[in-house]
Amino acid sequence: MIQTISASQFVKKQRAGIQRKVFDKTEAIVDSVAQKGFAAVAEYTRQFDSFTLDMQNVKINKSEFESGAAKLSHVQKASIDKAFSTVEKVQKALAKQALKETKVRVNKNGYTAIRPRSIERIGIYVPGGVAPLPSSLLMAGVTARAAGVKEIVVCTSPNKNGISPAVLYVAKKLGISDIYQIGGAQAIASMAYGLSGIMKKVDMVCGPGNVYTAVAKQIVSSRGLVKIDMMAGPSEVLIIADDSARTDYIAADMLAQAEHGTNSPAVLLTDSKKLAENVCIELEKQLSELKNNTTARKSIDDYGAIVLLDDLDQAVKIANNYAPEHLEVMVQDPEPITRDLANAGAIFVNTCEAFADYGMSGGNHILPTGGTARFASGLSVYDFIVRTYVEYMNDVEQQALSEKTTTFAELEGLEAHANAAKLRGRGADK
Amino acid sequence: MIQTISASQFVKKQRAGIQRKVFDKTEAIVDSVAQKGFAAVAEYTRQFDSFTLDMQNVKINKSEFESGAAKLSHVQKASIDKAFSTVEKVQKALAKQALKETKVRVNKNGYTAIRPRSIERIGIYVPGGVAPLPSSLLMAGVTARAAGVKEIVVCTSPNKNGISPAVLYVAKKLGISDIYQIGGAQAIASMAYGLSGIMKKVDMVCGPGNVYTAVAKQIVSSRGLVKIDMMAGPSEVLIIADDSARTDYIAADMLAQAEHGTNSPAVLLTDSKKLAENVCIELEKQLSELKNNTTARKSIDDYGAIVLLDDLDQAVKIANNYAPEHLEVMVQDPEPITRDLANAGAIFVNTCEAFADYGMSGGNHILPTGGTARFASGLSVYDFIVRTYVEYMNDVEQQALSEKTTTFAELEGLEAHANAAKLRGRGADK
Repeated sequence: MIQTISASQFVKKQRAGIQRKVFDKTEAIVDSVAQKGFAAVAEYTRQFDSFTLDMQNVKINKSEFESGAAKLSHVQKASIDKAFSTVEKVQKALAKQALKETKVRVNKNGYTAIRPRSIERIGIYVPGGVAPLPSSLLMAGVTARAAGVKEIVVCTSPNKNGISPAVLYVAKKLGISDIYQIGGAQAIASMAYGLSGIMKKVDMVCGPGNVYTAVAKQIVSSRGLVKIDMMAGPSEVLIIADDSARTDYIAADMLAQAEHGTNSPAVLLTDSKKLAENVCIELEKQLSELKNNTTARKSIDDYGAIVLLDDLDQAVKIANNYAPEHLEVMVQDPEPITRDLANAGAIFVNTCEAFADYGMSGGNHILPTGGTARFASGLSVYDFIVRTYVEYMNDVEQQALSEKTTTFAELEGLEAHANAAKLRGRGADK
Repeated sequence: MIQTISASQFVKKQRAGIQRKVFDKTEAIVDSVAQKGFAAVAEYTRQFDSFTLDMQNVKINKSEFESGAAKLSHVQKASIDKAFSTVEKVQKALAKQALKETKVRVNKNGYTAIRPRSIERIGIYVPGGVAPLPSSLLMAGVTARAAGVKEIVVCTSPNKNGISPAVLYVAKKLGISDIYQIGGAQAIASMAYGLSGIMKKVDMVCGPGNVYTAVAKQIVSSRGLVKIDMMAGPSEVLIIADDSARTDYIAADMLAQAEHGTNSPAVLLTDSKKLAENVCIELEKQLSELKNNTTARKSIDDYGAIVLLDDLDQAVKIANNYAPEHLEVMVQDPEPITRDLANAGAIFVNTCEAFADYGMSGGNHILPTGGTARFASGLSVYDFIVRTYVEYMNDVEQQALSEKTTTFAELEGLEAHANAAKLRGRGADK
């Protein structure tokens, strides 16, 4: 059973890291796909997914697509529809701001425009197989479309029973027809390098996956081939609660986090000894009621924590330093605490992660993990929008600025830069 | 002498890549600094910079700082001041937009806010030694300050004659007092991991450098330690010109690019055979007039190109696909072409890169290279601002959304997620 610990014990607690051998193994897959193309993809798919890929079945055909998407019940479709429209509402509002051009007059005869545009072509990875994640496709796809991305392809690992109907239904709503049955690191490499005769390379790869997918994304990004949304580590939640909070809610939310994987941290920070003790008991109770509690129990034992603090100010400091992916605030008066909280992927006030995971509260569920929320944001339209500086200046202005530019160039010892500026200073004496 | 080539010959031309051994060498430096701290930094500084670092001189002291900054002439200071205020004007205008909170009502009783905040603490690397780059410190520093970044440290390689007065002058204007005499990959590792008793770790590392610095940035970023601005490759320019353009301007701008390094592409796309031929001749002339033309000549020979095209539409297509860092438009009627150009770090219309390199035309000079402009932007306040989703929902709304959330969770087989949502559906029946 989980024990209450102190702040200093918590600070020493480590999150899970990535092993070197995972990097090497993943790099070999990426290199092989880059060199051998589809032959390598087919071989890895046979090895990892026990599935035979050929040039015909690698891409889902139209009838498979239509019949698959139709398999969902009305209630299931309504649930997806609600998530879709809610997430879309938020991202479209944000896109309005993000796609605005900013034009600044920098002097009498010159100005700079910062011109936003959408990335042209992206690939979304959707974990398939045993636990397909239609919600992740929804999150990435709705956000990309709201940002104006035109071409989207999807890769998901093949399954003997066919692609998940929910994944197909979401794809259909997104207007995506290029769905490839390729999983894991080989999918990431396929999207980054392209597959001759099958798939054109993309400019950006996004979506969650296991550690091999995450490392593959990092490798293709570091090679300058594509942008990636982020390098997602184990999902995590940090809950700040006082004695007004409900122990059953807290325990349920910690377990919802813990069922994601055996190294998903679920952390409670509280100033109430009574609450801490009751959550310990409630966790055991709810764990025993789960049909399948193996993963959640291991995760709670190894990475979970219930931390007893002197006051909630200390909780805010620890949270800002820990910079969790998800942060729940369950206190009597949430406003002042929420205002002081800075570093987190998403903060939930009087709501819980489960609603957010399924798009019901509006935010995105692709969020920065492992403390990267100190410097990284959750997925939004901003990730799919790039900006170009467009700089204009007439001849008069160039003559006026020539000397100052030459001086600066000479300070850096760049002779040809100085020459280019000097030449402009002389004006139209060709 | 450089020869005119065709579009198909140009498309096959490769940009420079990074060798595996550079990665391995850099990783060893990063690991050593992570493990041994300052001892490793001192050892690499002795090896690479022939400079003896100790706990006293590793950080510039106040009197060194003041006397160094005072060494600049009035003219030099005026040049830097002009660049500073121009770049600041643009970034402050952009910050106004970027720091705005977006709040969206997602349903009757719930809303999501996208709350922007500045990254707390950053490190800027400034190439030092033989060719210090005060302009890069200016570009990164002014942008970070405009975004609201509070803590900034600078690392620059040590020099027997002291740190460049221009670098110190810019640092002073930026209100930066923490300047460390550490260069190369060891500087990047020091900022990412921190140096016990000397320097606190930062959240983000930016600024240009040689290939070792670039690779070190990539390594610390991939480990989830810090954000980086970008992984900069060789600087490059692509010029689109018709027969109205001045050959002396074109040649001067190509050479300004080529003097950056022996693998900096300077590319001219034109529909005029006459212009192409004249630029070839002009390049030779200007090369022979440079005091030091070794680097520029090698770069032009190996990576330069003059490409003769059928028309300017073809030039636009090639440019969008090449996605250059710098793109100059020197044609009779620049408007329609500029509108169709998408993928570039910065586009210069009737102006040239030299002005932009020194902040005179308003844009930033830290720009995406190697074709990454397809999915990456030039440095701006957006790089120093992160966003948190803050989601609110009252109990009534949670009860209303409980069933839909449970349905979606069950679609993904996540039992504990479903439980957390179900519990909210029951409401305040504790």
